[in-house]
Amino acid sequence: MQTVNSMNYEHFLDVFGNVVEKCPLVAAAVWAGRPFSSVSALEKNIGDFIDSLPRSGKEGMLRCIPDLVGRGTLSPESQRERSQAGLTSLTAGQRSQLSELNASYKSRFNFPFVICVRMSDKETIIQQLGSRIRNSPEQELQTGIQEVKKICHLRLLDISS
Amino acid sequence: MQTVNSMNYEHFLDVFGNVVEKCPLVAAAVWAGRPFSSVSALEKNIGDFIDSLPRSGKEGMLRCIPDLVGRGTLSPESQRERSQAGLTSLTAGQRSQLSELNASYKSRFNFPFVICVRMSDKETIIQQLGSRIRNSPEQELQTGIQEVKKICHLRLLDISS
Repeated sequence: MQTVNSMNYEHFLDVFGNVVEKCPLVAAAVWAGRPFSSVSALEKNIGDFIDSLPRSGKEGMLRCIPDLVGRGTLSPESQRERSQAGLTSLTAGQRSQLSELNASYKSRFNFPFVICVRMSDKETIIQQLGSRIRNSPEQELQTGIQEVKKICHLRLLDISS
Repeated sequence: MQTVNSMNYEHFLDVFGNVVEKCPLVAAAVWAGRPFSSVSALEKNIGDFIDSLPRSGKEGMLRCIPDLVGRGTLSPESQRERSQAGLTSLTAGQRSQLSELNASYKSRFNFPFVICVRMSDKETIIQQLGSRIRNSPEQELQTGIQEVKKICHLRLLDISS
């Protein structure tokens, strides 16, 4: 952690800026919490910062994440993760099922379906989407943010390994 | 405003995502506040959201803004604004003066000097930097955030004109 703790904020942002997709603000905010005793301590700071955001900010964080299929520019991290989960090799049927379910999900919750794809596979993702769409908006906001934290956890491990 | 109010969040983010530099989270958060009665109402929502951030979040917002000269990738908006203020045509002396002052500023406050360059010119910017560096961290955080709001104001006007 000595290397991390000695980084100025620009360097820290270059390295950790996308641990939460398209939200460099998060890394930029927690940098001031140095020194971190471990990667887990850094992760705890990130989690606490996310939790401190108002509801609108948490919803906004989800809206910055591109759809699982279709629209949106993917970061290199996101592209790699989605390819690993098999989302780049969907059958035409799976692709249209995922698109339709995700469109319904967005129109119900006003944010996209977010899931840590690296802890899943394409069949489970489609099944989860079909199931989570029946949750309350409150539950889904919480679940989406939990998934953001799981994605962040794995990205932090990648960087520090 | 009818056009703006009818935008889905993806479209809204494409258009307003960078009214606060490198913080699409802000536009993504306030989108839910539609319908907006006017551009001023939208701006008010953005200001309120910024004010609702914890101190670390406000500092993080400033850290996402590239230095006035030197390091950092500029958004097209930022590039245009800096060129208008004459920051791309500094003399060697002005450039080194600005660099040195900004380095001192960052080492004192842990965030960069932020100023709405379109409401200024290069001589005033250098003079302001030399003067603001003597403020307290609390004062500079507040001033920096006020400048972020001025930059946002002008970017909103550009988009809506």
